[in-house]
Amino acid sequence: MKNWLRYDEMVDEALRGVVKQALKEAATKGLHGDHHFYISFQTHKPGVVIPKYLYSKYPEEMTIVLQHQFWDLKIGDIEFSVTLSFNGKPEQLIIPWQALTNFADPSVKFALQFEAVEEDLPAAVPELLLEQPAVAQSDPDADDQKPTGAEIVALDQFRKK
Amino acid sequence: MKNWLRYDEMVDEALRGVVKQALKEAATKGLHGDHHFYISFQTHKPGVVIPKYLYSKYPEEMTIVLQHQFWDLKIGDIEFSVTLSFNGKPEQLIIPWQALTNFADPSVKFALQFEAVEEDLPAAVPELLLEQPAVAQSDPDADDQKPTGAEIVALDQFRKK
Repeated sequence: MKNWLRYDEMVDEALRGVVKQALKEAATKGLHGDHHFYISFQTHKPGVVIPKYLYSKYPEEMTIVLQHQFWDLKIGDIEFSVTLSFNGKPEQLIIPWQALTNFADPSVKFALQFEAVEEDLPAAVPELLLEQPAVAQSDPDADDQKPTGAEIVALDQFRKK
Repeated sequence: MKNWLRYDEMVDEALRGVVKQALKEAATKGLHGDHHFYISFQTHKPGVVIPKYLYSKYPEEMTIVLQHQFWDLKIGDIEFSVTLSFNGKPEQLIIPWQALTNFADPSVKFALQFEAVEEDLPAAVPELLLEQPAVAQSDPDADDQKPTGAEIVALDQFRKK
């Protein structure tokens, strides 16, 4: 019973809830000011729906940006969906919250990192990047999780100025 | 509108929710295994109810331990209450979630730290202590917030062994 209380799962769930809350705000009110979202997710996670050519290009992880050009952002309990333009062609993506690996809003230097894990392992331990000159943490156990096409965002802190 | 999305408040709220969830588990199922909670809170926050002699002794911050000897742990939306024994005398404490400054479960090396702020300032920015040889962060702006009677718990990480 030593690990009866699974804090890692509780914190993971709580922080994925923060992403959900931010996206819900964006879905209902649009993105105001300089706010924009970088969202990375594991493309091979169950429940992810993306066009085949995107999956071929990003078989592990993919990063999308929500800023000016996004449509039909819908927030569900286990996933969200959004339509983005790829080479001028609109494509709908469906992304379960559990597939998220990173969320960042560079306008206020805020980022959350969720550790990528295999489906049969316990839930990820999220990493909260606060007031760190931080950045893309590398996980020595995840050599096969190289980001593909993800833009690296320099994050230091997100306290209000 | 730059700070339209208040991530600090959202994360703070989410992580106080984790404490609430842990206490709710303890309230309904008891504390199993080696789990025990160190809970620090600001004694002068609105809504805090403690005996006068404890407030005199700890006018700023106080740390309680929930392990073997606690009774009537009740979890509410804005506060929790618990009865503890002080020098053999049972006393009921009422502690709003917003008054929390630290939560730790040393059995699994888990800790959350919530920055102590004055009532008229924006919500605290919580600090998540993960995999850090960490401990008691000091806030140079909070010289008057010296912990009084709080035991210092060495925390390094809380991943499952």
